[in-house]
Amino acid sequence: MEDLDLNLRELKEHLKNISYLSQALGLIEWDMRVGIPKKAIESRIKVSGYLSSELFKLVTSSKIEGWLHYFDDKFEQLSFNDKKMIKKLKKDYDKFIKIPSHRNKEYIMLCSTAEAFWETAKYKNDFEGFKPYLEKILDFTKEFAGYRGFKKDIYNFCLDDYEEGLTTEKLDKVFNELRDGIVELLNKIKISKVEIDDSFFKQYFNKNDQHEFGKFVLDKIGYDFEAGRLDTTVHPFTCSFGNKDVRITTNYDENDFRSAFFSNIHEGGHGIYDQNSDDKLENTGLSGGTSMSVHESQSRYYENILGRSKEFWMYFYPKLQKTFPQFKNITIDKFYKGINKVESSLIRVEADELTYSIHIIIRYELERALLNNEITVEELPEKWNEKYKKYLGIEPKIYSQGVLQDVHWSAGLIGYFPSYALGNLYGAQFLYKMKKDIPNYSDEIKNGNFKIISHWLKENIHKYGCLYTPSELIIKVTGEELNPKYFLEYLNNKYSKIYELKNK
Amino acid sequence: MEDLDLNLRELKEHLKNISYLSQALGLIEWDMRVGIPKKAIESRIKVSGYLSSELFKLVTSSKIEGWLHYFDDKFEQLSFNDKKMIKKLKKDYDKFIKIPSHRNKEYIMLCSTAEAFWETAKYKNDFEGFKPYLEKILDFTKEFAGYRGFKKDIYNFCLDDYEEGLTTEKLDKVFNELRDGIVELLNKIKISKVEIDDSFFKQYFNKNDQHEFGKFVLDKIGYDFEAGRLDTTVHPFTCSFGNKDVRITTNYDENDFRSAFFSNIHEGGHGIYDQNSDDKLENTGLSGGTSMSVHESQSRYYENILGRSKEFWMYFYPKLQKTFPQFKNITIDKFYKGINKVESSLIRVEADELTYSIHIIIRYELERALLNNEITVEELPEKWNEKYKKYLGIEPKIYSQGVLQDVHWSAGLIGYFPSYALGNLYGAQFLYKMKKDIPNYSDEIKNGNFKIISHWLKENIHKYGCLYTPSELIIKVTGEELNPKYFLEYLNNKYSKIYELKNK
Repeated sequence: MEDLDLNLRELKEHLKNISYLSQALGLIEWDMRVGIPKKAIESRIKVSGYLSSELFKLVTSSKIEGWLHYFDDKFEQLSFNDKKMIKKLKKDYDKFIKIPSHRNKEYIMLCSTAEAFWETAKYKNDFEGFKPYLEKILDFTKEFAGYRGFKKDIYNFCLDDYEEGLTTEKLDKVFNELRDGIVELLNKIKISKVEIDDSFFKQYFNKNDQHEFGKFVLDKIGYDFEAGRLDTTVHPFTCSFGNKDVRITTNYDENDFRSAFFSNIHEGGHGIYDQNSDDKLENTGLSGGTSMSVHESQSRYYENILGRSKEFWMYFYPKLQKTFPQFKNITIDKFYKGINKVESSLIRVEADELTYSIHIIIRYELERALLNNEITVEELPEKWNEKYKKYLGIEPKIYSQGVLQDVHWSAGLIGYFPSYALGNLYGAQFLYKMKKDIPNYSDEIKNGNFKIISHWLKENIHKYGCLYTPSELIIKVTGEELNPKYFLEYLNNKYSKIYELKNK
Repeated sequence: MEDLDLNLRELKEHLKNISYLSQALGLIEWDMRVGIPKKAIESRIKVSGYLSSELFKLVTSSKIEGWLHYFDDKFEQLSFNDKKMIKKLKKDYDKFIKIPSHRNKEYIMLCSTAEAFWETAKYKNDFEGFKPYLEKILDFTKEFAGYRGFKKDIYNFCLDDYEEGLTTEKLDKVFNELRDGIVELLNKIKISKVEIDDSFFKQYFNKNDQHEFGKFVLDKIGYDFEAGRLDTTVHPFTCSFGNKDVRITTNYDENDFRSAFFSNIHEGGHGIYDQNSDDKLENTGLSGGTSMSVHESQSRYYENILGRSKEFWMYFYPKLQKTFPQFKNITIDKFYKGINKVESSLIRVEADELTYSIHIIIRYELERALLNNEITVEELPEKWNEKYKKYLGIEPKIYSQGVLQDVHWSAGLIGYFPSYALGNLYGAQFLYKMKKDIPNYSDEIKNGNFKIISHWLKENIHKYGCLYTPSELIIKVTGEELNPKYFLEYLNNKYSKIYELKNK
């Protein structure tokens, strides 16, 4: 028993060091997006490369193999949390050990460079310049998939990184049901007589006022500014170094109120999830969100289910009107319809709640085709435009509004996109249960009692960190596997009312 | 020869890694002072502690001993820069190897905690709470001095860290000459009939306008914002991670224009020095400033010699008056006298150019007495007040304006203070040479041609990084050892005119 304790202690020390190094790397990354002076980028990438390779040494250390072997025999003697810790470690270790360290380092440095380049490329509409970076990133992805034994459908390798156990087979099924459901609803909306005016959002909204109002709402809904901060970047993101330092960023559009506001509470949702992870899980590999999809379920819950609900604005609208007299003569009903207008659009992050998933499905199809060599990077813009034309009836005129709009590919996040759509599904299924547990859910929101919600989310989801896989968690919380019907029901209910549709 | 190249390459790789880790640590430190959420401080200190101990492993690696041994035989075959690199490495290695790694780690974590505590303590005027931290820091300093073989006058150990080769014996001599000279001048000023009015500085000056004006001047005098940034902190500082990322900070007082402005160009002077360090020296241990005193000579040159000169304001004053109409009816002569008013005061960073060195001498005497066990930390505030009374005729009513005013001791920077006064001496001696090399020096400044100055400083001082020790550098640049007469002459000339003194 003493031997067991000693080994556990040593292992936990090692995991702490991994966490410390990751946090340092996280800070460097945050700084590279938020504050770094232009001329320092090149040299900072080398710093990041060095620390990454040190981190790689720790996560692939042969000591871990020793511990895994040791605890294999003693598994049943471990506590619940320690069992989960060992399981997670084993999965992560297996993942890493198969990739040669020097290639991993090169890949990380490539992604840093590519992301920095992407910012300029997007600004300059320069797909030609960006192409070689994307090609290299795809080559790395294929190479890494090979090391990990993914041969048939390489995309499964990418999915496994973001959503344990998910396969393209399952995903196709879910996405098909989702797409059919959305298209059916969309067709009804197209013939609806309801015309929604959202022109009043296209006015001048001062950046500082947006910032102050955003902070006010974030604080109110449960984001803790003593364990986080809000900065400005090109592409908004959330970045956590432990549950006590969870930073979010935003990007203000002074000519449209919606852009930054919904992005803020989206990132705020990610942030609240990470901030509420149990202290006991810190530095064990089990803190933070359990998967990208569950993470997105939280951010998209705050952004859409909560943030685009009537009840939410019944509480915040008077305050908003005070901050922005631009809304003085806009009724709350008009405002509510305005933020829920359904319309085909080019920019994913600005898409409405309904068509959003179509943007994701497009990216999913393209990523998969690129990895399976069905299309080349050269052809990507053309294919991108084709799909936008086909599914949404519109196509971008410039790369910046098309294929260059998202940071993900430049950052090496191939396979991440599906998480956004899956997040919608998780979120709606959680909502179904939350409403059962909080019978006066709507009233609580109307009264600004957001604590009851963040408390429910914390107790049911957030505090568990990575203790449960997404599929375990959804069953634990809702008693059922992930089922697209909840999201489709939610959409049908909401949009039938807004667009006055006859039948569900 | 191939063997030599191989060893050099390996050594340089090792030095790069040391530099990368130091840069990561630097960023963490910067963030802890500039942006970290309150609740994260405790856990971030652990991250910093871990990285510091990793850095300590690298700087004390037995590989270094091997290289030092190897290059000892081959020294004459090395290039000039490589010789300097080896010399510097040997000194640093000897310094570190004598201190037990776990004690060093504890010390670094102590300083992080102490510095964070100091901020609150200063705010709350809580010397009692701060005492144990300072006591521990002094104990560590004595312990470390012991490891390094300093027995007689422990303060020499502290000096050696900041100014290679300087001893208390030499310093006493220089400080005595300096003190006598200042007191003599001060006595003349006291009986001068000239009354200087500086009440017009005590008005409301908007923080944002101060920030913009500060940035404008910094840019103009040569601080490169593409290789740096300006943020707000409690205690202004400069922090470099390579010559491409040199960050400065400031602290705005909206009720006195002088405070932030002169602090800005002081830190800007540090920043320009680091930014101008030659690219070739990056990551070799030779980049950045050669000593704290030479660093202070640059910051204090910009702050005082340049920034409090008539010529400087002949260029900037119209712009200042435009930004701050508060100065509309103040003549440049009145303004110039106002920024050069001599007056005994309590706060070092707000002291005038003349009495400033007295603040330093007080701290020097107290630090030295603490280390030699002539006084206790308990007695420190009393002794502090006694000395202020004795030398400047005033004493603080609260700790925040006395013994708690500076960050240095909490950050473990015992022995740093003398650098400020030495910086004045170096600065004036450099100025003497600069004026010989730039005959129309005054006119260039009047015309805003600050490039000619930053170019001279770069070519004569900055670009050399640590290639020369301070005593080598002063001879290389001025042909003479450090001599207090230049600073005293400078002071006499300047203040004789301002206070209309008869004889020099």
